Formats: sequence, C-alpha cells, structure tokens
Amino acid sequence: MTTHQFAATRWYNVLGTFEPALRCSSGDIIVTETLDAAGVDRNGVARASRPNPVNGPIFVEGAEPGDALRVEILRMTPTRDTGWTYSPLATNVVDPAHVHSLPKPQRFTWMIDREKRTVRLQDPPDDLDGFLLDLDPMIGCFGVAPALGQALSNATSAENGGNMDYRGFGPGTTAWFPVAVPGALFALGDCHAVQGDGEIVGTGIETTFEVEIRLTVEKNRMLTWPRGETATDIFTVGNARPLDQALQHATSEMLAWLTTDYGLSIVSASHLLGQVVRYDVGNVFDPAYTMVCRVAKKWLSQSARIAKEG
Amino acid sequence: MTTHQFAATRWYNVLGTFEPALRCSSGDIIVTETLDAAGVDRNGVARASRPNPVNGPIFVEGAEPGDALRVEILRMTPTRDTGWTYSPLATNVVDPAHVHSLPKPQRFTWMIDREKRTVRLQDPPDDLDGFLLDLDPMIGCFGVAPALGQALSNATSAENGGNMDYRGFGPGTTAWFPVAVPGALFALGDCHAVQGDGEIVGTGIETTFEVEIRLTVEKNRMLTWPRGETATDIFTVGNARPLDQALQHATSEMLAWLTTDYGLSIVSASHLLGQVVRYDVGNVFDPAYTMVCRVAKKWLSQSARIAKEG
Amino acid sequence: MTTHQFAATRWYNVLGTFEPALRCSSGDIIVTETLDAAGVDRNGVARASRPNPVNGPIFVEGAEPGDALRVEILRMTPTRDTGWTYSPLATNVVDPAHVHSLPKPQRFTWMIDREKRTVRLQDPPDDLDGFLLDLDPMIGCFGVAPALGQALSNATSAENGGNMDYRGFGPGTTAWFPVAVPGALFALGDCHAVQGDGEIVGTGIETTFEVEIRLTVEKNRMLTWPRGETATDIFTVGNARPLDQALQHATSEMLAWLTTDYGLSIVSASHLLGQVVRYDVGNVFDPAYTMVCRVAKKWLSQSARIAKEG
Amino acid sequence: MTTHQFAATRWYNVLGTFEPALRCSSGDIIVTETLDAAGVDRNGVARASRPNPVNGPIFVEGAEPGDALRVEILRMTPTRDTGWTYSPLATNVVDPAHVHSLPKPQRFTWMIDREKRTVRLQDPPDDLDGFLLDLDPMIGCFGVAPALGQALSNATSAENGGNMDYRGFGPGTTAWFPVAVPGALFALGDCHAVQGDGEIVGTGIETTFEVEIRLTVEKNRMLTWPRGETATDIFTVGNARPLDQALQHATSEMLAWLTTDYGLSIVSASHLLGQVVRYDVGNVFDPAYTMVCRVAKKWLSQSARIAKEG
Repeated sequence: MTTHQFAATRWYNVLGTFEPALRCSSGDIIVTETLDAAGVDRNGVARASRPNPVNGPIFVEGAEPGDALRVEILRMTPTRDTGWTYSPLATNVVDPAHVHSLPKPQRFTWMIDREKRTVRLQDPPDDLDGFLLDLDPMIGCFGVAPALGQALSNATSAENGGNMDYRGFGPGTTAWFPVAVPGALFALGDCHAVQGDGEIVGTGIETTFEVEIRLTVEKNRMLTWPRGETATDIFTVGNARPLDQALQHATSEMLAWLTTDYGLSIVSASHLLGQVVRYDVGNVFDPAYTMVCRVAKKWLSQSARIAKEG
Repeated sequence: MTTHQFAATRWYNVLGTFEPALRCSSGDIIVTETLDAAGVDRNGVARASRPNPVNGPIFVEGAEPGDALRVEILRMTPTRDTGWTYSPLATNVVDPAHVHSLPKPQRFTWMIDREKRTVRLQDPPDDLDGFLLDLDPMIGCFGVAPALGQALSNATSAENGGNMDYRGFGPGTTAWFPVAVPGALFALGDCHAVQGDGEIVGTGIETTFEVEIRLTVEKNRMLTWPRGETATDIFTVGNARPLDQALQHATSEMLAWLTTDYGLSIVSASHLLGQVVRYDVGNVFDPAYTMVCRVAKKWLSQSARIAKEG
Repeated sequence: MTTHQFAATRWYNVLGTFEPALRCSSGDIIVTETLDAAGVDRNGVARASRPNPVNGPIFVEGAEPGDALRVEILRMTPTRDTGWTYSPLATNVVDPAHVHSLPKPQRFTWMIDREKRTVRLQDPPDDLDGFLLDLDPMIGCFGVAPALGQALSNATSAENGGNMDYRGFGPGTTAWFPVAVPGALFALGDCHAVQGDGEIVGTGIETTFEVEIRLTVEKNRMLTWPRGETATDIFTVGNARPLDQALQHATSEMLAWLTTDYGLSIVSASHLLGQVVRYDVGNVFDPAYTMVCRVAKKWLSQSARIAKEG
Repeated sequence: MTTHQFAATRWYNVLGTFEPALRCSSGDIIVTETLDAAGVDRNGVARASRPNPVNGPIFVEGAEPGDALRVEILRMTPTRDTGWTYSPLATNVVDPAHVHSLPKPQRFTWMIDREKRTVRLQDPPDDLDGFLLDLDPMIGCFGVAPALGQALSNATSAENGGNMDYRGFGPGTTAWFPVAVPGALFALGDCHAVQGDGEIVGTGIETTFEVEIRLTVEKNRMLTWPRGETATDIFTVGNARPLDQALQHATSEMLAWLTTDYGLSIVSASHLLGQVVRYDVGNVFDPAYTMVCRVAKKWLSQSARIAKEG
C-alpha cells in the first residue's frame, strides 16, 4: 500500500475519460488538495474555472466495468480561513409565487477557525450575531468516469456520482461507485466546510481542503448507483429530477443491495425498509437532485445473524 | 380546562365541514380511541370503511379562519395486540422498469407487545426471525376542515393536514393547522405502531390507539401549511406531488415562520436554513407526498437571543 | 326527451354531494347560463364567489356508481361583450430563475364581437394592435361529484373532472365522466371565449355563456378518468401533478379504452399508440395539471373493421 | 455553397468535442446516410453500437460560442425496406400500478414501401391487419457539442439538442442549436419512419435514411435551448424531467424569442401565448423528456406588421 501525494496541475469541469493525472494500485491512499467550487486555491489564487473543478482523473489499476470503486474518506483538513456562500434561498426551492419576494443573490464570506473547528459569517447581521457552526466537512463532487464516452458536468450528478452535494460524504464515510471504464478514472473536488440538507442556497460553505482517501477495487459488484457506509448506516444514492425519481433510484438500489448481499427476499427487504428506512435529501439545487436511502446497520446484523443461523 | 372522553360513533373518510361530533373549549383535552386504517376497532370489529376513517369533527370554540389550531399529542396508548402492513414496496417508489420484479402485495400481521413496547412479525420468515422493533406511535391522518366547503379524502393531504403519514407526529410533538372554518373541525385517525420514512410499503404498522391530545386556538396566526414542534426541533409540512413541490411548500412556510415569528431577515433566514436545515420525507405513497422542513431549536434560541439583545 | 331551462340561483365552488338544483332523465337537454370564473354574470353583477362557481348539481335519473355520464356539448353562446384575462405568464410556467423578470400580474379586458365571433383586447398595446382572435368557446370546469363524500375545489381537477381547462371541451365535443354517486350530480361553469394550451396566463378569456348540453347515462362503463370524443378523435384525460403523472393517467385510461371497447390486445394497442398518439396539454396552471391522450378515429375504424372481419 | 457527400466511417454515442469528421462552410449542404438506433446500416450490417450512433461531428467554419447553428432539413429518403419498434408501452408512461399488466417488451419488424411511402407491420395481428401508416420521416437525435467539455449520451437530450425524438423534426423544418464550442460540431442519427407523440413504446419506427441538410451559422443569437420553424409555426424545445420543467424551459425560450426578435413586451408576449400557444410532447421515454412550445406564424406577422407600423 502506497500513499500518493497528488498535487493537481490541471482540473476538469466534467467527469469523463481523460488522460490519467495519477495511477495507483487498489488499496492505495491519495492525499490531495482541492480547489473551491469557483476554482480558487488555499491562497486565494484562481487556478481553474467553474463549475466545481476536480482533481483527477486517477486511474486505479485493475478496475474494470462491472467492478465497484470503494472510496474511503479518511481525512478532510481545511486549508483556508475563509469560505463563501450565496444567500437568499435558490429560486427553485420556494413556491414559484414567492420567488418575487427573494432579494437578488449575493456572495457572503465565512470565517473558518481551523483550531476550534468552527465557522461563522465574517460580518454577521445583528439577527445572526451568535450564529456559530461546527466544522462538518464533506465532499460535494466526486465520482468516476461514466460509460459510453460520456463526460458529465460537475454541476450535476448521475449513476457515476458527481455533484451530489450530500453532507453525509464526510470523513469516516465510505462510498462506492460503479466502474464504467478501465481504471475507474476517479476525481474529486468542491468540498464544503458545512452544508445543510438540499444545498438550498446553492452552495455549502465553499472552501479548500486537504483530502485523504483510500481507493480500492471490488471486483464484479454490479452497482447501478453510488452506495455508502458510515459507522452506523448503509445508504444508496439516486440522482435525478424530480426528487421522486431520485428516490426511486435510491430505493431500487437499496432493494438490490439487501436482496443480493444480505440475502433478504424482496418481501423481507420490503418489511425492513417499510418500517426502518430513512431518506436524506442530498441536494435540491443542482440539475439532478440527490436522494439518499439509508438503513441503520443494527437492523442488518440482526437479519444477517438470523439468516446465517436459519 | 376539561378532559373529554370522546367515543366516536360515526367516522368520516374525508376532512370536511360536517356536524360536530364534539364541542370543546380552547385548551381542553380530548381522549379518544381510533380505528385502524381499514376501520377495524380494538376488538377486531369492522366499524367503518376505508380509507382512514377519522374521529370527529371536533368543534373548538373560538377558532376562526386565520387562526391556528394547536394540537399537542400528549399520549398514544396502543389498544390491540396486532397490527398489519402490506409488502412488498409500493410500485411508485421503485424504478418503473423494476415494478415487474415485485411480487403481488400481501397483507401481514404484526404482534404488538404492549408491556415491552415492541413489535414483531407474527410469522417471520427465516431471514427476519430476529427483527424486533420498538413501538414508536404516530398519527397518520389528522387535521382540520379545508376552506371553500371542500371535503378532502383521508387518503391524501393538503394545507389542512390529512394523511401526511409523517413518523414525527407522535407523543410529545405539537402540531399546528391553519383554521379555515369556524370551530376548526378537527379530526384524527389512522395511527401506526411504527413506520419508516415515506410509508413505502403503503402502510405503517396499522393498529388502534387511545390518543390523548390538547386542542388550543391561537388567534391570527395566518399559517398556510401545517407546522410542528418537538423537544428539539421546529418543522413545517408541505403536501403535494411531486416531492419537489412538497419541499417548496415546506421551505416557503419555514421561511415565513422564521421571518415573521423569529424576526430574521430573508437573507439571515436563508443563511440559517442553508447550513442547518434538515428535510424528512413524510410519505411518498399517498396521492399527495409529504415533505418536512426541520430546524433544530438550538439555532433559533441563539438567533433569538441575539436579536433581542441587538 | 325534455329540454330544461335551468336558471341557477346558487353556485358551488366545489364539485360534491349537495342537494340537486335540478333533476332530469337520461337523454334530457339542459340549457343554462354560466357565470364567469369570478362569479360575475352577463350583466356585470357579482352573483357568486371565486373560484369558478358552477351551476348544479344536476341529478340524472338512473346514474349509479360504475356508470358513465355522457355530456354532449351542443352549443355555447356568449352572453356578454367582454371577457378578462391576466398577464404576464404564471410564475410556474417559466424557469424559476426567470420569475424575477415577470412584471406583477394585472387584469385585462377583452372585447367579444358576438356577431363576427371575434375577440380582441380592449386597449391593445401598439405591438398587439392587430391581434384578433376567433371566438373558440370551451367549458373550463365541469364534472360530477367525486366518491367517498369528497368535495373538490373548482380550482382543481381529479378523476371526476373539474377545472381541467382543456380547450378541446367546446361545442361538438362529447365528454364522459365516471359516476361515483347516485344521480351523478353534474355541474358546470368557468367558460372561456378563447384559451391557448396550458392556460399559462392563469386564465382563458373569462366570460359568460348560455350552454346547451345533453346528459345521458351509460350503464356499467367503469371509467377511471374522463374521456371525450370530437368529430375526428377520441381522447382521455389525466389530472395530476407533475404533468408526467397526468400523462400516465391519460395513457393508462386510453389503453383501457382500446383494449376493452375496441378489442385490441395490449400489444396491438401499444403499436397503435406508439405511432399515432397525440398529447394535448390541458392546463399547467391549476393545482392539478391536465394532459389529454388523443387518437384519431380513422385508426380505430380501420382496426375495428379488420377486427370484425378477422 | 458546396454540397458534401459525407460517408461516416465512425460513429459516436455521445454529442461532444471530438476530431471533426467533416469541415464545411456556413451555408453548405451535407448529404449523409444514417444508421438506425441500434447501429445497423441500410444493408442490415451492424456498423456501430447503441444507443443512437450519430454521423459527425461536422465542424462549421465560423461558428463560435454564442452563435446559433441553423439546420435546414431539406430531404430524408428512406434507404431500407424495414424498420423496427418495441411493444408494449414503456413502463414509465402508464400508472405504476398498471405496469404489472404489461407483457414483456418484444421487438417487431415493420415493412416500409418506399414507392408508396407507407409503413405497416410485417406480421400484423388480426386486430391490426389494416393498420397502414404514411411515411413521416423525422430525425430522432441531432445537435451540437455541449459546453464545458461535456459529452452527453445520445440516449438523452439537453440545451445542445440530442435525442429529443420530436416528430416535428422532419423535412421542411429548420432547427437552430446554441453553439457552445468553435465549429459547433454538429452530428445526427436515429431517424424514424414514423413516430407518435412521446415515443411511448420507446422507439419510433427505427430505420436508415439518406438525409440532406444545410448548415448555416447565425452570429450572436444567444439561444439557450433549441428552436425550430416549419411552414406554419415557430417553436422552442425544452429537454428535462419532469415534463413540467421541460415545459418551463420551452416557454421561457419562447418568451425570450418573442421579446428579443419580435419586439413584443413581456405583457404582450404573454397575451399572445396565453391565447394561442400550442404544446407538443416530443418524448416522454428518454432520460430527459422533451416539450415543444409552438406558435403559429400568422400571429407573429400580424403583430410584427403592427409593430412596424406603430
């Protein structure tokens, strides 16, 4: 197992099939610094253009279509003292008749205290003077090259991942992506210091990070959509509009996971999901919305145990 | 303050303007036993027809259009040892191309241990033999009469509440509904022993309860959509299809709440929501889907404090 | 066969189960004058309140749940020289990001020349000075009482019809509605002098008409959604949001019609629809959107002939 | 003006930025033979893979981002005696609860009579024995390279065109696409002998054509979405899900066209659209649905005349 210090020198605004910027073996660790969503680095220097320039692609030896690429998010260290957001709410998350009441979007700066791991507005208005957030890092945009020679904008997301903007993709989380091209061609960027559900102001608190991940090939996993795991849960991700369709994708993927890997019948998996499933809204701002279907692992160990004994 | 023991003798399948079954004063407590979603009582006797027969309407003195009816859910005591569900997943929560793989829906019985407050399948398949749920009661369908002389099916939901099937509507939660007719004409039914997000098998664990609630009129609140509060959060509810529109309604209602009652500007409310909002999926099965927009109260006391001092 | 001159004296803002204003036999003709969408009569007198007050309900002898009510639109004679609309476009028919560019809605008056059967703006701006429309009457809101004791707002539509705002519902068209209560309880109102697809300014040209219709009971037809027929086409109507779901309803109803009444297999009906179907957008403004699935009758006579000979 | 006989030797399954297969001047005519949607040529030989391999890209000299590429469809001559479709209806165009009743999709062959210009099933079932269609050619998939280095699957469509599957894109129609890269990089394929609205069986009658088009650069047109013109109408195209959003895109684009090129105010354009607009459903099968917003040219010449004189 090797640790690669990967200093990106060019960035892409799409996930696609390009000349690899780095080659690694399955199981290797990558440490890399990301730009913010606008392409600005830790020193405030504009290095790349919008939207969401990503570091990569990384070619992982042995990855073939039909495999899964496991991405363990080991660490995210903020590298800058400022982040930025927009306000007010995006026009597509309020009732159409209320859009007129929203003021024009403005950009705001937030201060990141990297020692105390807190975030606050640089110049808070009186009514938010005490508003202090805990740093809660996440990767907004990551994934692998899509099939068919497609190159998909980092503004959006699809089966291959992309700009899912799900706050669950932080340190300690493992993600899996369906490999569609040899080497998987992984890339990442657009990290946030904090973000609420839905990314409803159109941004998280956009800033730069040093990210440490481990990339591992799992052969013949046949995923359709991204999957993930935290200390407590497993989850699947659907990316589409409307949100209903994103939910259908995520739910279908979870049903496939439970029946294939956990040995549950469709009826049993439905019993389980019907009573314990949780849904998280990833984003409702980007061209494709993101819905997460989540199940606590305690339910699965319970079922798995029984299944083994049965 | 009076406590009313309300034994319903007829049930409605709609929320509408009917002769009150009970009249009470603002602040009174109501204790009533609900039928299950199919109209069956605690003794297994069919007393009313589907869908979701409700106890009521209850006329609350002093409630007028423009007011809010506050409904405190004080207690939900299960009154039967069995509940029922359907399996597999509903056809509208999986990808259309996967519907063919779902077996035909069947009804299943669950055993409710009222002492231990647990729930399990009556005849679990091997792969779910250890599947034991904690009792987690909730009201599936409750609300007030809608405006204009409408009478809306208890299968669906709207501005006046109805069949929202949100698992957050359990004991300890307070709900508010926008009053549209004199007396508000509140009714409730369709309680569940447990339910996952989305009610994606088309049911919770459907059973009967004795429910204790307090009904209070709040004058001139001018809500558009239902609101709620738990020990830790405030939330708003949007009911519509697609889920995107339900989310727009819930978000617009939260924005109205934060700017009107908490004194935040639209920009400040957007900063807050953008970084701390949580969305819960109520149901994605009924004709109208339900999305909940939720904010932890800790953020509001922080802001409120500052606002007062500012 | 009797012709009833039906002068309404009260109007409802919902379709529901109320005391009939008129009773007639199957096959009778009804002549009645409608108010405009705001409840104003031919003389400019406000007689009822918004939205879309309807004349009725009319109890048709012999109609029972499971039957269809056939409604032949025999004649629509405008009874006033003015109509009104709103402008600009509704906020929900443009991109959310473009709503800001729309000026605030204003009401405009149109002049109806009943002799020449033309319509024009009363005070046209220079850039529309020559804009002259042919009178093209249609019924915006009509239908029967829904099931379960529901009463549904005339602002929206459902299985029972209602505010479909489809420009195809004009003189010469026959409509069918699924009867859900004894007597069907038909009502109508909200007629337009002209309307484009979608009712995208939120109104047609709203005015008053004398409408002549024939109401006939067809036993045991088991429709789910409204159907219609013109000189050249048959069509089905789905009412829901999003438009995708309205389209699913209309298409499913057409598939049922072709397989049940025209003797086509599902595969043959699919061949036919796949190559000849036409969709019309009824409305994309009201709470439920309306999509029409339409097939030219020439295809059916061709198939029917063959089927008979086969 | 030159006429290019363009015999493609490789095909792409995406619209993107690739080495041009042909370079032409603005105003040149291109004659090229297309494969069918599965990549099979006029002789039944498989030449490329699914989905929808396209001929191109064609670099048009002088085309720059911000320009429009005008594509006049001059002629479409079928080059094969057979086409193919699927049946039954696609799972996403019927109610989810009805999907179970659809038989599994099968492929069917159709006979194209190139002299009589008619199309019929090769082995029609009895109930469709007389089903004879007129040849009505259209281009299913065409457009230009998208911005940002994206490469978008020919299964779907976006601002740059793509797999819109709109039956209006036949001989005599002119289309415009927003140029996003130097040379525009136009490509086309997936032509149909006939297709109903919505492509609801998932295919038109898929076959091969010789297509003759003229490509012309129009400088600084700043389109956002594709536009078109026929002998009688102008139209705009929105590609998205749900259909509601496709309609918003198409309507916003038409509003932009009417106000920018036809000199109408937003209020006047809204008056016009409100009363005369027509919507056509392009496809409701592909990942992005297609909605067309259409206005008869007679209304515009009327308005234009007045505007000039005013």
